[in-house]
Amino acid sequence: MQKKVLRTVCYDAKGLIAKITAVCYKHQLNIIQNNEFVDHQTHSFFMRTELEGVFNDDSFLADIDNVLPDGSQQELITVARKKVVVAVTKEAHCIGDLLIKSIYGDLDIDIVAVISNYDSLQPLIEKFNIPFYFISHKGLTHQQHEIMVTQIIDTINPDYFILAKYMRILTPDFVSRYSNKIINIHHSFLPAFIGARPYHQAYQRGVKIIGATAHFVNDNLDEGPIIVQDVIPVDHSYLPEDMMRAGRDVEKIVLSKALFYLLSQRVFVYNNRTVIL
Amino acid sequence: MQKKVLRTVCYDAKGLIAKITAVCYKHQLNIIQNNEFVDHQTHSFFMRTELEGVFNDDSFLADIDNVLPDGSQQELITVARKKVVVAVTKEAHCIGDLLIKSIYGDLDIDIVAVISNYDSLQPLIEKFNIPFYFISHKGLTHQQHEIMVTQIIDTINPDYFILAKYMRILTPDFVSRYSNKIINIHHSFLPAFIGARPYHQAYQRGVKIIGATAHFVNDNLDEGPIIVQDVIPVDHSYLPEDMMRAGRDVEKIVLSKALFYLLSQRVFVYNNRTVIL
Amino acid sequence: MQKKVLRTVCYDAKGLIAKITAVCYKHQLNIIQNNEFVDHQTHSFFMRTELEGVFNDDSFLADIDNVLPDGSQQELITVARKKVVVAVTKEAHCIGDLLIKSIYGDLDIDIVAVISNYDSLQPLIEKFNIPFYFISHKGLTHQQHEIMVTQIIDTINPDYFILAKYMRILTPDFVSRYSNKIINIHHSFLPAFIGARPYHQAYQRGVKIIGATAHFVNDNLDEGPIIVQDVIPVDHSYLPEDMMRAGRDVEKIVLSKALFYLLSQRVFVYNNRTVIL
Amino acid sequence: MQKKVLRTVCYDAKGLIAKITAVCYKHQLNIIQNNEFVDHQTHSFFMRTELEGVFNDDSFLADIDNVLPDGSQQELITVARKKVVVAVTKEAHCIGDLLIKSIYGDLDIDIVAVISNYDSLQPLIEKFNIPFYFISHKGLTHQQHEIMVTQIIDTINPDYFILAKYMRILTPDFVSRYSNKIINIHHSFLPAFIGARPYHQAYQRGVKIIGATAHFVNDNLDEGPIIVQDVIPVDHSYLPEDMMRAGRDVEKIVLSKALFYLLSQRVFVYNNRTVIL
Repeated sequence: MQKKVLRTVCYDAKGLIAKITAVCYKHQLNIIQNNEFVDHQTHSFFMRTELEGVFNDDSFLADIDNVLPDGSQQELITVARKKVVVAVTKEAHCIGDLLIKSIYGDLDIDIVAVISNYDSLQPLIEKFNIPFYFISHKGLTHQQHEIMVTQIIDTINPDYFILAKYMRILTPDFVSRYSNKIINIHHSFLPAFIGARPYHQAYQRGVKIIGATAHFVNDNLDEGPIIVQDVIPVDHSYLPEDMMRAGRDVEKIVLSKALFYLLSQRVFVYNNRTVIL
Repeated sequence: MQKKVLRTVCYDAKGLIAKITAVCYKHQLNIIQNNEFVDHQTHSFFMRTELEGVFNDDSFLADIDNVLPDGSQQELITVARKKVVVAVTKEAHCIGDLLIKSIYGDLDIDIVAVISNYDSLQPLIEKFNIPFYFISHKGLTHQQHEIMVTQIIDTINPDYFILAKYMRILTPDFVSRYSNKIINIHHSFLPAFIGARPYHQAYQRGVKIIGATAHFVNDNLDEGPIIVQDVIPVDHSYLPEDMMRAGRDVEKIVLSKALFYLLSQRVFVYNNRTVIL
Repeated sequence: MQKKVLRTVCYDAKGLIAKITAVCYKHQLNIIQNNEFVDHQTHSFFMRTELEGVFNDDSFLADIDNVLPDGSQQELITVARKKVVVAVTKEAHCIGDLLIKSIYGDLDIDIVAVISNYDSLQPLIEKFNIPFYFISHKGLTHQQHEIMVTQIIDTINPDYFILAKYMRILTPDFVSRYSNKIINIHHSFLPAFIGARPYHQAYQRGVKIIGATAHFVNDNLDEGPIIVQDVIPVDHSYLPEDMMRAGRDVEKIVLSKALFYLLSQRVFVYNNRTVIL
Repeated sequence: MQKKVLRTVCYDAKGLIAKITAVCYKHQLNIIQNNEFVDHQTHSFFMRTELEGVFNDDSFLADIDNVLPDGSQQELITVARKKVVVAVTKEAHCIGDLLIKSIYGDLDIDIVAVISNYDSLQPLIEKFNIPFYFISHKGLTHQQHEIMVTQIIDTINPDYFILAKYMRILTPDFVSRYSNKIINIHHSFLPAFIGARPYHQAYQRGVKIIGATAHFVNDNLDEGPIIVQDVIPVDHSYLPEDMMRAGRDVEKIVLSKALFYLLSQRVFVYNNRTVIL
């Protein structure tokens, strides 16, 4: 008995759920949980089916393919521990939270490497026997630096590359190498305060709520598909540094929640949006 | 072309989704939205299927019944405006919110009568040309008062009986007449502060958050299945009356949100719990 | 025995609280509540002092003025019911909430007139015996329309002019006539989604949280000092119209909360920000 | 130039703020921030005054004492890093969060020892070179175990003793040794679900929101003064273990927020309540 997740994306049509679940039934697979969503504007059909049973992957996927319209995408995924590489700059809160969750069972990730353009967090990371790659950006062009980062990532070939308060902008070239695999935590409630120093921008504007956004990274800065957002109240007494301190707790929770959804195979991306089933 | 909701509750078994959606497909009904939930501890299966097409109700339900295990419950419901009777005491905020939402399209209810043991709200209700039944409890036993209330309700035969800050306890006899039809808003985050004067209890305990709970009413006070809860922060400066004032906004939103779910045929009740699909 | 609020704004200096409260003590006024804030970056001092006693306003304010630095602003205000004019377009939820709160004691306002560029809400407003001024914008220039609105406002001379989902942009001329007296509710979490159709913008961006912002109106659209903000979660299943429906509850609560702070004399405006004491 | 906090608690009287701040002014101390609260029901006056300047502690406190009514309590405290001992059982999330915050500047605490009745967390704690005291409760009476814990605490003499998911009940004897020094995180929204297995209780009751409560520990289980509470939404699909997982993030944030307030000298305790200034 195994557990797998069937992820189906296709053009909407009558009878899709019946056809897909009939294939599951034919294969004697038990549906633990089934969630679907139809975007009636674009006629897009999304379904996540959590299955239990004895799988013949090839035959099952062939049967699924037979009942779906042309152009469908289906994947049968074993929910398993994933390899991630994490990039950081100087702040410890996000990577610290990921470390604890990784070790004590709250996130099914193995952090196989941490990359940083500063060495500040090296002592922390090495306590946990994780390779720390200090790649200073000093004296390098943006491109040169990214090539060095790319080499590490490509050697490791992780499932996800997580920007856990990595304070450097990535080039479109870099980003396009890892489509839908780079997750960033941005320290604002996007699309408010795109770009640098969002808490200073928030202070300047006098907002009464601040937030954080976990999103996929695509070529435009802070404009990728949003996975999770959350906020906390602030008031006139918060200086930018108070917002930073309070915001760190939101940032880390939002990032790890986004990873939790991803690892559960619940996140679908289309039209710069996410569907979370 | 019509829109209806199929609600299915039965003992869990392999192939249920396939079988039910195959019947929908056979009847050429389009599935707008499908949500299901299985309680794996009690093996209970719940499904809400929003359908569009030309319905032959009897033949469709017979086909559904054929594919389900013994003891299944299935209903095919036209999502339509519902008749409600509202009971109030002296506070206007919940009934005021229901009135505005009823008239301006945010809740598909017709408030066909308002019953109160005080006449305080009569002027407001009558502005909206809704019959107001003032049934004072003075000089009556609890039972005598309830019989008078019952007579009004039974004459009207509403879909739901809504307690919108009705500050009297109902007897088990009364409650059992209207099983899963009475919705109450309780001004605390249940199960904290059951019973009278919950804001005073909250003040006494020094809590930092207060809330409200919309729930079905069964025979035990404030112990029916919970539909919606929400909370707001408070601090040491809140006296009970400040909690009351701030709480009123939570109460009315929680109550109307619960009704919204009910009217969308999204609420299933079992084991003193609700499943909201 | 009366209750009044002393509002003090001045350049920060050592001993200000001692000096101000010493004057209160000398006048035998009891301090019910005292809140102060210093912006150490701009050296601005703000204090709200809730007082109880027998007041000699002129002598008290003269004494206060004597102890404060040059350029100080101090006001002694009786917290009392305020006259407001409300502008609406077609939506009932905000004005409906204000009406109920005004009548039943949750907001100390008298709504002395409602102005609209549509007649949709006339039946509702007139139920409450409040003058409804239907001033269609059709066939008028923006300026001509505003002059007609201005005439009504100036005849009434209200304490505040509340834009309760009034869907027209005001000119700088109009706005400058009523500095810090116009309160708007914007249906987004500003500064995200400034301008028209914010829920459609939010849908487009795929955000996971939507919100509302109550703010003073100054000459730049949606850029005035923010008083209150709040948010609610949404997910991929929300179309713009679902966001609108859910958002209406946030909008009305945020607007009335902003008015509650204003009426309590708790709001101070400076540098396009608010301090709420 | 130093920074200190004056904490004043006394019976309310006219002129208190004037008198206290006049003493500050006389001593040429600058008030960075001043917050006060009066409980008008018990006539209790609380004030937190953040001061900057050159302090003569004895003379300043003598002057303060002179202007206050009999029975007043005043303290002049240097806001400084505090020594804490943390008790844990098997869960890492709270202690993990405290460790990261302690090292990277988000909490001004030195964790000088960790005590546990299991050795599960020993590897984590020792990575950070913090003494880990494994004191199994097996084969010991409750009293014998507590004596061993007490000996460690008393040798260290910490400022606070933090129960970071320490799953054992403390005896009144133990608790009374460390009045207002023991902080617990309880994994429910108190007073709902007092006692053991609160998430299972929450699941059983079918609540739609779960929470956590940081509170001082006094002799009655889970009934001490509440410092911070927060909540998150759940739905019918959450089993107790899902609540536990989601709840862990709330627990750790609530606990560290409570400590942040404590360390800022913002928390006052009276009548089983807290005032947070």
